[in-house]
Amino acid sequence: MKEFRNFLIDTWEQKTSLLCFGMDPVVERMKIDKSKNLSDEIVNYFSRIMKEILLKITAVKPNLGFYLQYGNEGINALIRLIEEAKKNEVPVILDGKFCDIGRTSEAYAKFAFEIAGADAVTLNPYMGYDALMPFLNYKDKGFYILGLTSNPGAKDFQYLDVSNSEKLYDRVIESALKWNNENSGVGTVIGATQKEIKRILENLSRIDNYIPLLIPGVGTQGGSYKELNDLLNKLNYKKGVVRINSSSAISYAHENFPGFSYTEAAYLAVEKIMKS
Amino acid sequence: MKEFRNFLIDTWEQKTSLLCFGMDPVVERMKIDKSKNLSDEIVNYFSRIMKEILLKITAVKPNLGFYLQYGNEGINALIRLIEEAKKNEVPVILDGKFCDIGRTSEAYAKFAFEIAGADAVTLNPYMGYDALMPFLNYKDKGFYILGLTSNPGAKDFQYLDVSNSEKLYDRVIESALKWNNENSGVGTVIGATQKEIKRILENLSRIDNYIPLLIPGVGTQGGSYKELNDLLNKLNYKKGVVRINSSSAISYAHENFPGFSYTEAAYLAVEKIMKS
Repeated sequence: MKEFRNFLIDTWEQKTSLLCFGMDPVVERMKIDKSKNLSDEIVNYFSRIMKEILLKITAVKPNLGFYLQYGNEGINALIRLIEEAKKNEVPVILDGKFCDIGRTSEAYAKFAFEIAGADAVTLNPYMGYDALMPFLNYKDKGFYILGLTSNPGAKDFQYLDVSNSEKLYDRVIESALKWNNENSGVGTVIGATQKEIKRILENLSRIDNYIPLLIPGVGTQGGSYKELNDLLNKLNYKKGVVRINSSSAISYAHENFPGFSYTEAAYLAVEKIMKS
Repeated sequence: MKEFRNFLIDTWEQKTSLLCFGMDPVVERMKIDKSKNLSDEIVNYFSRIMKEILLKITAVKPNLGFYLQYGNEGINALIRLIEEAKKNEVPVILDGKFCDIGRTSEAYAKFAFEIAGADAVTLNPYMGYDALMPFLNYKDKGFYILGLTSNPGAKDFQYLDVSNSEKLYDRVIESALKWNNENSGVGTVIGATQKEIKRILENLSRIDNYIPLLIPGVGTQGGSYKELNDLLNKLNYKKGVVRINSSSAISYAHENFPGFSYTEAAYLAVEKIMKS
């Protein structure tokens, strides 16, 4: 089994794209046949987009919440869709923002890595190290710990000054760096919409670890892929371990590209995102 | 539809118990027939315990992770088990520690309240108010925001001094108090294993809100139901809005009470927990 960090680097070397495709089903926005089996339709919809843009993406990120909203049918679709992604040799990041006491984290980790077969997960740091450890025990997997998120509410707690006058998110990112020494799959999440991302990336580029970075917030949320790519080049950051995510701007691109099929529209959206 | 806070108070007035039964399936520990349908067996197992201890419990708390580890069958069991609990008129707290950006939180809230039919959820505060709002928009529901958790890793971030020299968990609990003014269902989680719980309860008892409190960590984790009950009496806290949770000490009581069926053992465990 390949280490997650190397899996990231290998796919980047093949495709030189940082783009992660967020696959979040919203039935009302999907071009599907509502008389057919929902689970089949979700798998088919995202598999078709994935294949269309396969040469342009180096990760996929299904978000658990969007599947759970369709109950057991949704979870069934999630598991099958991850299987499809693995056939296409794309790293799969299951976005569950997991965080619970040890025994419960074990159950979540079993779900994420053994039942769903994901290569990596997102984790929420609030409950500290022992809540994350059951995940980190999976040696070949990846772990994106929420640092500074892309939403406005990030300011409520993440921006608080903590002891030694740094921000809470700085402290979390420092912890991720420390935990990366135990498992090279440990990385962090930094929202593309936050102006502090420049300073954070500058700091991280001075450290040898080059931890995996997941940067959401490009596309619908307003962050810029090109600016981030230029900044990473300038900083000489090891780009192979970075992924920039866009979800609905790709999945529901047909809403912005009238006259095109949803797969063609997704391809056009990807080209647009990577140029802007 | 009854407001969640009133639902809590009504069930407490009927039964004068603070006990919440955590229903977390671990197939290896359950007395079930493994040749039969897993979902049916999980529903049957916890329904039987629930009925046996019904006069002694005033909430149930299934934890999402334990169901997800059994894939779509597990989610199917979770939804059906919540239906059973509702027939028994017990408040259902879905422990998912949810936390995501707005659109995703909407999907989780839809799952928790519309698909699974829970009365309340647990929420992780790390991403701030806009991540919680889609839940709080459900006016008759309950929302337990993680304040100070029962696990050792609580010290990693929750105990950090933040601006104005309070702890991060103090700041979160203050926020929960503020948000409770918008929706009386907003409460918090405080681990029974933390010695600071005394000071936190003293502070909360000075405020008129009497926000819902979920206190895990009794039973296997080592907290004391009786000490908490005595403290709440002394402080004159409105006990109807408080729930003290125990999970595996009840569900797997047959491991500690040899010679008894798992339902009889669960009853004996509940009596023991409430006395110690």
